[in-house]
Amino acid sequence: MATWVYNFSKTPKKDKAGLKNLLGGKGANLSEMIKIGLPVPPGFTITTEACNEFYKRNRKNPIGLDKQVKSAIKEVEKKIGKKFGDKKNPLLVSVRSGARVSMPGMMDTVLNLGLNDETVLGLAAKTKNETFAYDSYRRFIQMYSNVVLGVDHHNFEDLIENYKLTKGVTLDTDLDAEDWKKLIKDFRDVIKREIKKDFPQDVYQQLWGAVGAVFQSWRNQRAKTYRKLNNIPEEWGTAVNVQSMVFGNMGDDCATGVAFTRNPSTGEKSFYGEYLINAQGEDVVAGIRTPQNITKKARLEAKSDALSMEETMPKVYGQLVQIYKKLEKHYKDMQDIEFTVENKKLWMLQTRSGKRTAKAAIKIAVDMVKENLIKKDEALLRIDPKMLDTLLHPTLDPKAEKDIIAKGLPASPGAASGKITFSADDAETLKSQNQKTILVRLETSPEDIHGMNAAEGILTCRGGMTSHAAVVARGMGKPCVSGSGTIQIDYQSKEFKVGNRVFKEGEIITIDGSSGEVMSGEVKTIKPDISGDFSKIMSWADKTRKMQVRTNAETPLDTKVAREFGAEGIGLCRTEHMFFDEERILYVRQMILSKSKEDRSEALGKILPFQKKDFYEIFSIMKGLPVTIRLLDPPLHEFLPKSEKEISSLASSLGISEKEIKDRISDLHEENPMLGHRGCRLAISYPEIYEMQCEAIFEAVLQCKKEKIKVLPEIMIPLVATGQELEILKELVDSKAKEMSKKYNQKLDYMVGTMIELPRAALNAHDISKHADFFSFGTNDLTQTTLGISRDDAGKFLDDYVDNNIFKIDPFVSIDVNGVGQLVELACKNAKRNKSKIKLGICGEHGGDPDSIMFCQKAGLNYVSCSPYRVPIARLSAAQAKILSKRN
Amino acid sequence: MATWVYNFSKTPKKDKAGLKNLLGGKGANLSEMIKIGLPVPPGFTITTEACNEFYKRNRKNPIGLDKQVKSAIKEVEKKIGKKFGDKKNPLLVSVRSGARVSMPGMMDTVLNLGLNDETVLGLAAKTKNETFAYDSYRRFIQMYSNVVLGVDHHNFEDLIENYKLTKGVTLDTDLDAEDWKKLIKDFRDVIKREIKKDFPQDVYQQLWGAVGAVFQSWRNQRAKTYRKLNNIPEEWGTAVNVQSMVFGNMGDDCATGVAFTRNPSTGEKSFYGEYLINAQGEDVVAGIRTPQNITKKARLEAKSDALSMEETMPKVYGQLVQIYKKLEKHYKDMQDIEFTVENKKLWMLQTRSGKRTAKAAIKIAVDMVKENLIKKDEALLRIDPKMLDTLLHPTLDPKAEKDIIAKGLPASPGAASGKITFSADDAETLKSQNQKTILVRLETSPEDIHGMNAAEGILTCRGGMTSHAAVVARGMGKPCVSGSGTIQIDYQSKEFKVGNRVFKEGEIITIDGSSGEVMSGEVKTIKPDISGDFSKIMSWADKTRKMQVRTNAETPLDTKVAREFGAEGIGLCRTEHMFFDEERILYVRQMILSKSKEDRSEALGKILPFQKKDFYEIFSIMKGLPVTIRLLDPPLHEFLPKSEKEISSLASSLGISEKEIKDRISDLHEENPMLGHRGCRLAISYPEIYEMQCEAIFEAVLQCKKEKIKVLPEIMIPLVATGQELEILKELVDSKAKEMSKKYNQKLDYMVGTMIELPRAALNAHDISKHADFFSFGTNDLTQTTLGISRDDAGKFLDDYVDNNIFKIDPFVSIDVNGVGQLVELACKNAKRNKSKIKLGICGEHGGDPDSIMFCQKAGLNYVSCSPYRVPIARLSAAQAKILSKRN
Repeated sequence: MATWVYNFSKTPKKDKAGLKNLLGGKGANLSEMIKIGLPVPPGFTITTEACNEFYKRNRKNPIGLDKQVKSAIKEVEKKIGKKFGDKKNPLLVSVRSGARVSMPGMMDTVLNLGLNDETVLGLAAKTKNETFAYDSYRRFIQMYSNVVLGVDHHNFEDLIENYKLTKGVTLDTDLDAEDWKKLIKDFRDVIKREIKKDFPQDVYQQLWGAVGAVFQSWRNQRAKTYRKLNNIPEEWGTAVNVQSMVFGNMGDDCATGVAFTRNPSTGEKSFYGEYLINAQGEDVVAGIRTPQNITKKARLEAKSDALSMEETMPKVYGQLVQIYKKLEKHYKDMQDIEFTVENKKLWMLQTRSGKRTAKAAIKIAVDMVKENLIKKDEALLRIDPKMLDTLLHPTLDPKAEKDIIAKGLPASPGAASGKITFSADDAETLKSQNQKTILVRLETSPEDIHGMNAAEGILTCRGGMTSHAAVVARGMGKPCVSGSGTIQIDYQSKEFKVGNRVFKEGEIITIDGSSGEVMSGEVKTIKPDISGDFSKIMSWADKTRKMQVRTNAETPLDTKVAREFGAEGIGLCRTEHMFFDEERILYVRQMILSKSKEDRSEALGKILPFQKKDFYEIFSIMKGLPVTIRLLDPPLHEFLPKSEKEISSLASSLGISEKEIKDRISDLHEENPMLGHRGCRLAISYPEIYEMQCEAIFEAVLQCKKEKIKVLPEIMIPLVATGQELEILKELVDSKAKEMSKKYNQKLDYMVGTMIELPRAALNAHDISKHADFFSFGTNDLTQTTLGISRDDAGKFLDDYVDNNIFKIDPFVSIDVNGVGQLVELACKNAKRNKSKIKLGICGEHGGDPDSIMFCQKAGLNYVSCSPYRVPIARLSAAQAKILSKRN
Repeated sequence: MATWVYNFSKTPKKDKAGLKNLLGGKGANLSEMIKIGLPVPPGFTITTEACNEFYKRNRKNPIGLDKQVKSAIKEVEKKIGKKFGDKKNPLLVSVRSGARVSMPGMMDTVLNLGLNDETVLGLAAKTKNETFAYDSYRRFIQMYSNVVLGVDHHNFEDLIENYKLTKGVTLDTDLDAEDWKKLIKDFRDVIKREIKKDFPQDVYQQLWGAVGAVFQSWRNQRAKTYRKLNNIPEEWGTAVNVQSMVFGNMGDDCATGVAFTRNPSTGEKSFYGEYLINAQGEDVVAGIRTPQNITKKARLEAKSDALSMEETMPKVYGQLVQIYKKLEKHYKDMQDIEFTVENKKLWMLQTRSGKRTAKAAIKIAVDMVKENLIKKDEALLRIDPKMLDTLLHPTLDPKAEKDIIAKGLPASPGAASGKITFSADDAETLKSQNQKTILVRLETSPEDIHGMNAAEGILTCRGGMTSHAAVVARGMGKPCVSGSGTIQIDYQSKEFKVGNRVFKEGEIITIDGSSGEVMSGEVKTIKPDISGDFSKIMSWADKTRKMQVRTNAETPLDTKVAREFGAEGIGLCRTEHMFFDEERILYVRQMILSKSKEDRSEALGKILPFQKKDFYEIFSIMKGLPVTIRLLDPPLHEFLPKSEKEISSLASSLGISEKEIKDRISDLHEENPMLGHRGCRLAISYPEIYEMQCEAIFEAVLQCKKEKIKVLPEIMIPLVATGQELEILKELVDSKAKEMSKKYNQKLDYMVGTMIELPRAALNAHDISKHADFFSFGTNDLTQTTLGISRDDAGKFLDDYVDNNIFKIDPFVSIDVNGVGQLVELACKNAKRNKSKIKLGICGEHGGDPDSIMFCQKAGLNYVSCSPYRVPIARLSAAQAKILSKRN
């Protein structure tokens, strides 16, 4: 028979993580507190496994649970000297959920369980406080009815309000035992009316109802949404904690409170919390009464008259201080604690690692190292890399009011306000007039890049976390909200609608790329503040990690930002972005419209000096750090004009007919451009394109050499599927290098490698590695092809997939370990088998995702590459990955 | 030192295949004939490896070749008693190419090599025939100059014509030694003028020139094109055969001829060939003189006066008959032989397996089994499965004249003529008037299916071998030429242009889907004739093969055809084709435009009876054979109208606004539909669609049950990437079955399985197989995703890929063993590890491709499924695969 139930003082021997997985965070911590001798009301935990079994059995309790719970109750009765359901000396319990990680407010709790028409008498007699007893009873009925029986709480509140009106009083505390007795009768009538059943009088029936409700709450909508937002797997399940009640509301020698062992907002090392005299725990959180400070210092700082606990209950306060210090020392982390004082006796109800801001996380970690409480490794693990984002971008002032008009995906972090503009050109024009804009588009394309660059932020109606807008915005470090589906743009009349509201060009909106919110008007933002502790943590991370961190960048601006953020090279320089520049796009189009190799070469010749200049600038900024240049990747049709106006203007520029252009556009049209004539396939058909790009690279290298700037170019061939492709194109690069080397009588150092972004390439890594100095895993495209999902179109169904638990998390955000991961590992293994020194990296969006970085460490990659603003995240993640890899 | 040269009589000990790979077909056969004691002029072979080395060394001869050739020549000299370059008794040789497989006319040959101004005197003296000697010399100069020196042959022909005019004669044979001497002088002047060099007099220089020319010819354009058409890898290389000359043109006791040991056109068992008295081998082929029959019987049948060899040279004829019988017995196959009679002595110059028509191949194979010459296994291997196609479809009358106006891809075999029509509706209208049409479209879409069905054949300007048009046409068994890029359609004016020619709607054209030719006007066709031998071969194949053969079919017509062709079930019934039917498309569109689940279900309810009827019909035809039904696969936008007219008509039918429809179309638009919201993803979002389809299937099953028709439905879920998807959707199928089973109180037997068509599915086969009764490999989509190539767009670069030898063959035609194949094998292994009895099949286009079928046997599949007209091909291929698998 499986063990579903553990008393707090008899939990199994497991490591901390194992215990938490089994008993949930709350249960594990209660057991831990007992172990270190803290005063905890006795109780027991029903395991997370029981919850999973409950769902497996189609929402029926696991076999054996009944017996085990009863025997656990017996033990609690023995310890506390009260009996569950006893008329004279009744044991009352709380029933609380407790998942592996804290999900605050996400699940339901029932207090005072065990009260009925008979036990309430016992409680009254025992406490000599009839009002307290009936107040507790009615609180229980309200809570239980709401949580377990599904009777809406307004039913009860209305009755109380009416009663108070009739009686002419305003506060609940003005009601006495008789009042509550009458109201309880009314409550029970309402329940009977609403659910056609009586309120249960049997205490075990009450208990099963509450346990079932906690289990059920694991899959209610609130919990599902919370899990989705926080990437918590559904199969973790929740535990249920049943604990004997202690009362903070039995008189003025009672109290209840919550506290943090350090300031969770700033990280400052000072005890911080709130309490209420004569109150139950929920009252502190509920906000009906204003809680008082715990320390005198805090009270004085807040200029409050309400006495602190330090002042009202100095002895108990002294105990609490001892306890919080003991807890922090024990857990070696800042704790979030809950306590109750019952007739001057202090009871600890909960301790857990306290949530904190990114800033606080960093300060606490650095301080605790100084205090010799934790080691640097531990400090690094304490910081959630994803939180760093908030330190690097402007954020909305939390105090500002927000008129939220729509939501989309939090595609690129940071907040920004500006005038609505619907075209890239307009954004650029306004920028030149020093006006801030938000570029609003159905979706963006490479042609919009100059406008994205000019705007403060980007808002799109279509596309996911890895849509063009999202990827480019992250690269630029600009806020972006993508796929905001409720916004309907009308380009003609230059306005968009959301519901009934219309927003015209020029009106100001604010977007928050960290939350996905779109707001009307300007919302105040706060500038990022990178303190000294931040750079200390980063330097620890750099000393710890094994993987290098590079960046995906192609503009001088991005490149500079990335270096400032600590990038150790460029892992992906996308040359096509350079093709869209206004000065050159005409030549690019001329090249595409050429009818012969000669014409094509002529047009390419005009692009050459621009490309050379681009590369020269990047090499100069990166001086000496490796720069991976990906040769042209997108299909040629992306460069051709789309509107009639542009076509007509291009026709007259090139002196050809519009029909010719349209014919070429139609020729080049592709059903599935993602799987089309792109990447190295372009160079198999038109080798002269890559020849020009190599010439530009080598020219730039030679110029740097002349100026004594160190350069290490890594030339990367995209979309290779076979060894032959790479063999042919490496030969092309090599012979161009030989030619240039001879022409200028200079030695040229460079590497040639390829992206592994097709399943076939991963499967044939052994063969392909013969021709490659390095592999860079292009996990964006590899995810698209391995899963058969177009990232541009995924928005239409990916939500359904996450909702149905088919994907735990969007595979474009965090690497799909079982699919894409298998291919990456296979490719690494086979490539190294052939060439042990081959350099391996990743340049997909996953390169900036902490979980994926963990995977990369395991797969044995040499570096990750990500957008500039993610470089610090990647540095920390890589350090964490290294630390954890040593532990496993 | 590698051995590059082998004398015919001293070839290495290898099996037949090994010998052929090394020495080429011709070289291996010459050596073989010597071994069995036939008269073969001595000579030697330079190996195919030498050819490859030649290219590896950048078109330089392999090291050591020089020495080995000289020593081989010495041996020939010894054997024949003549000396190479000797003034008195010169050895003359022929230099011929000889690849692993015969590539007729594709490469160059030089005869009479070894003649120069001095040796010609020796030849004249020795043969006592000065005219013969100088005629041979001038022939050598002409051939050598053309083949080796690159001097165009018209230069020489013009000189001869002029000379004959001046002399007043008409035939070459009217010229004597003195005439040839003069002409030879003129020839050499021309050569000097053209290439600024003298004609080489050194016989070894002559030899090296000729050997180099043969090597070079392996990569000339003709050879490349031939290889491409016949899937011959470039790395096979060609051997070079150097053989002492024998002369059929030294007088009337000399002759030369070619013969087949059986009739290559009909397969009839009768010696069949042609010869010429006093002629060199090339004369028979060149068609200057009309060759005579070899046998008297043939002469009489042809009503010819020119005496047969049987009559003119009865003794030699007798020897030849002995030899051909010996050869056929030795090779156990019909032989194509070449011989020369020099002064009454018979010399064998070549033997090889004779090319034959499909009809002849079948007859010869069946006859040889009857004659106990070969076993049934061998007979099955003798027939190229691809050739069967020509027996199943109408073919162009080879005697008819053809005005070819364009070429495209041979997308679906067979020939057809009809009136040009540009729309599916027009094709249908004309069909109802009993008029034959060819449907001409830029490309086809599922909306054109009724028109494709109505037309005799389909011609498209875009798309490859696996474009929509090609796939559907093959399924229907209709001729199709796809991707005929030179045709420019103008839908507006209802005409198409090819170059300067305009073809209007209603004009008649003919297409040949076996060759890809498009012809103006009607070209006569021949009906297919499936003889008794055909069905005998098929019955042998059926007894031999292990894999079952199913068909991809969804219409009653296709289903019937497939059964007639021997299909053992349906491997892929695509339900979406049923959605396009005129009666139902409105409801389908209504479903797609629904705003709620309820509306959607209502619309689906209207489609249900149609689907039920479809399934009922198919089950009835297949009675008892398994039928795999794939639930809805394509993205919903494929079903929405495209033209303004259709949109407006739909709007009024459904009573909604056009804007609403357009908005939905724009909503559903996908960048890469191949990787979009399709397959099982539709059912995750809208389970009611699959629920309706399952209901229709089970309703049909129950009706069949009532009528005592046996049914075995296999319900197939497409585009699965994860085990969870299949788990969810199997549950959907099962609960629908349970519901129906309960409702009608009937047991329902069915299987649930999935397509493996995404790399991730293949990689996670173990997990997915837990929920599957069967896997069907959808290798079309698996090829698209594994290689990252859209089959709709591949036409733009696949040629470049085959030309560059990156793909040996279009991966959509024959399975890419190293990429897709790896995944299929992995998936089979892992699925079987989990569930040893899982049924495995393939339903991609590859299911009808012989090479891919070979792969399927190796991978351990239970069945292949292909379009109806390919079923016989698959039956034979599966048998061959089984036979060969036993041998390896």
